[in-house]
Amino acid sequence: MSLAERWLLPDGVKEVLPPRAQKVEAARRRLLDLYDTWGYELVMTPLIEHLDSLLVGVGRDLELNTFKVTDQLTGRMLGIRADITQQVARIDANHLNNQGPVRFCYCSTVLHTLPANPLASRNPLQVGAELFGHSGVASDVEIISLMVETLNAMQVNEDLSLDLGHVGIYRGLMGEAALSADQEAEYFELLQRKDLPEIARFLANSDLAESVKAHLAMLPTLHGGREVLQKARVCFADVEKSIIEALDYLDALAEQISKRYPQLDLYFDLSELRGYNYHTGVVFAAYVPAFGQAVAKGGRYDEVGRDFGRARPATGFSADLKTLVELSAVQDKSARKVVRVPAVDDSAALEAVAKLRAQGERVVPMLDERVVEDAQLFTHQLVQQDGTWVLESL
Amino acid sequence: MSLAERWLLPDGVKEVLPPRAQKVEAARRRLLDLYDTWGYELVMTPLIEHLDSLLVGVGRDLELNTFKVTDQLTGRMLGIRADITQQVARIDANHLNNQGPVRFCYCSTVLHTLPANPLASRNPLQVGAELFGHSGVASDVEIISLMVETLNAMQVNEDLSLDLGHVGIYRGLMGEAALSADQEAEYFELLQRKDLPEIARFLANSDLAESVKAHLAMLPTLHGGREVLQKARVCFADVEKSIIEALDYLDALAEQISKRYPQLDLYFDLSELRGYNYHTGVVFAAYVPAFGQAVAKGGRYDEVGRDFGRARPATGFSADLKTLVELSAVQDKSARKVVRVPAVDDSAALEAVAKLRAQGERVVPMLDERVVEDAQLFTHQLVQQDGTWVLESL
Repeated sequence: MSLAERWLLPDGVKEVLPPRAQKVEAARRRLLDLYDTWGYELVMTPLIEHLDSLLVGVGRDLELNTFKVTDQLTGRMLGIRADITQQVARIDANHLNNQGPVRFCYCSTVLHTLPANPLASRNPLQVGAELFGHSGVASDVEIISLMVETLNAMQVNEDLSLDLGHVGIYRGLMGEAALSADQEAEYFELLQRKDLPEIARFLANSDLAESVKAHLAMLPTLHGGREVLQKARVCFADVEKSIIEALDYLDALAEQISKRYPQLDLYFDLSELRGYNYHTGVVFAAYVPAFGQAVAKGGRYDEVGRDFGRARPATGFSADLKTLVELSAVQDKSARKVVRVPAVDDSAALEAVAKLRAQGERVVPMLDERVVEDAQLFTHQLVQQDGTWVLESL
Repeated sequence: MSLAERWLLPDGVKEVLPPRAQKVEAARRRLLDLYDTWGYELVMTPLIEHLDSLLVGVGRDLELNTFKVTDQLTGRMLGIRADITQQVARIDANHLNNQGPVRFCYCSTVLHTLPANPLASRNPLQVGAELFGHSGVASDVEIISLMVETLNAMQVNEDLSLDLGHVGIYRGLMGEAALSADQEAEYFELLQRKDLPEIARFLANSDLAESVKAHLAMLPTLHGGREVLQKARVCFADVEKSIIEALDYLDALAEQISKRYPQLDLYFDLSELRGYNYHTGVVFAAYVPAFGQAVAKGGRYDEVGRDFGRARPATGFSADLKTLVELSAVQDKSARKVVRVPAVDDSAALEAVAKLRAQGERVVPMLDERVVEDAQLFTHQLVQQDGTWVLESL
């Protein structure tokens, strides 16, 4: 193996070097402090768990995305977490005896076997918040608000837009259409691509009722401003009641979000099915023009705790903190001194050094006087004058 | 799989729940801020790397301790980091063009296939610091001092003792003894257990020169206070010069450490060979009576960068932050308010909430008025009086 190869990290695996690592750390603190003031308790989930626990209630996507290893102690399969939401749901279901709403937040690395897209990281630093124990618009408003505040705190909010969808609409239409498994798989796939010509061909070749065909042809066109909700109401008035309830829910949510964030651009996409086998209600994602993917996303997943023995309503969001830092307009305003000091051992010098460090200043001893330590941008030096150590600007 | 089984984490895998997670986070910040003031730059190494890169220059122990998976993109073997030191050495060797001393610190989870001992964690939160580019007592003094300051900052320092060894002494004796590979493996194993009767039997049954036998019998007895160094000088005066140099080094190190930390109990163990195939000079570990294992440890490893194309002198230490938090006497002195507020949507209430949160107070809306949120220990509530929202003690 050549030296150059040994330097290379696997594709899509990223490390964070100085000075960026300090920015990521500062962002971590800023966001965890924000979540703390909102009542969200920090949890540190394990990097590795029994595979069954990790994959409870999740779809095949996450299963494929999870690295698997054998536990040498027991021979059982373990998984390296590819997401943190399920772990937090397990904690809510089992460890804590709360009946009312409970709020958790986290900031930890996850690993993906394959990148979500060619430019995506396989080791994102996932930051997020989850709210358990409340079903209804108020908790989705709270979670979406906290997602927006996250982007505000990171100053990733120029021309921010919020995409809203609700998996109940597609579910309701599927209830009406009663497609075969193969038909539904095909329609689902075409819908995700919004491939209107292919959807038209698929419907034309099917033996579905004309009203069903009309509904399934309409769904991929229902995206845009809030008028989309009214349009859908008209189209789907005679289908399942659950569809109208989903539209009511989106309306109420949009109302409250717009009141809190009047500048926020709301976009509705009723065929958005991200995490379909996982989400149970509203789904949302935040976009900024500077980035081709969602910068943060989430949704409601009320069923996730069932396999852990306690199905509690749940809603949450997450983001990759490294991406947020890359996009962030936050300026580093550190006014800290960086002080060099000769590598002496007299107690007066050591005391002067300790005092500066206790004040938060950086003090670096010159271990090798022959070498200029260009790694540090020194602003000051400690020098001995008349027997005492004094700080001197450079 | 039963529900109860699904709750169980794998043996030795630990999660950190509230309120302990907040303590771990506070400790992380305290230590990274400490390292920052000492000039140590934060790095965030990847959780996964090509196995060859991860295992460069390390011993078989670490190889066995590393979970291995296949990269689905390339078919190459990847390893989940079981240690962070090698990764930091790779970064020093390749990414940064510094000639002089360079300092790094980190705080990240590592994974071990097997626990180091029956009570050890398989997912420790490794915190540590590494100093590259300086060989000599000054850098070991700096690293040991920072290790001691770490324990002081965490208040894991009651009856703290520092164990010091130097692998050069064993290496020098092996140079003299010229044992076969089998013989050396047996002696090494007996030495690590300090099994004096078995060592005597091993030497009696060997055809080694009497002087060699005397040296190898003496080595496991050389532990105790600083007088051990003088005793070793006498014993090994006629062996390799490198042994006397190692003793000189330990003497100089002890001198400077004692001057900086007069209260610190120094203990010398010349047969300490932890990380033998990795360390190249002094090795050290910190102990407190409350914990059966080292609470922090480290040593010099000058050769680690060679396989990355740049062998630079290196010394460093690490600890498990979760263990430090468990042992810590630091008291949580948070005087933060925890405020409940009705889940109302009027802008005056939202403004009052935002203001309190911006001040660092925790404010939690009561999403479900029927449920007492016992998860939070509320100190205050926001109530509406005469049209304005006021804070009220509980």
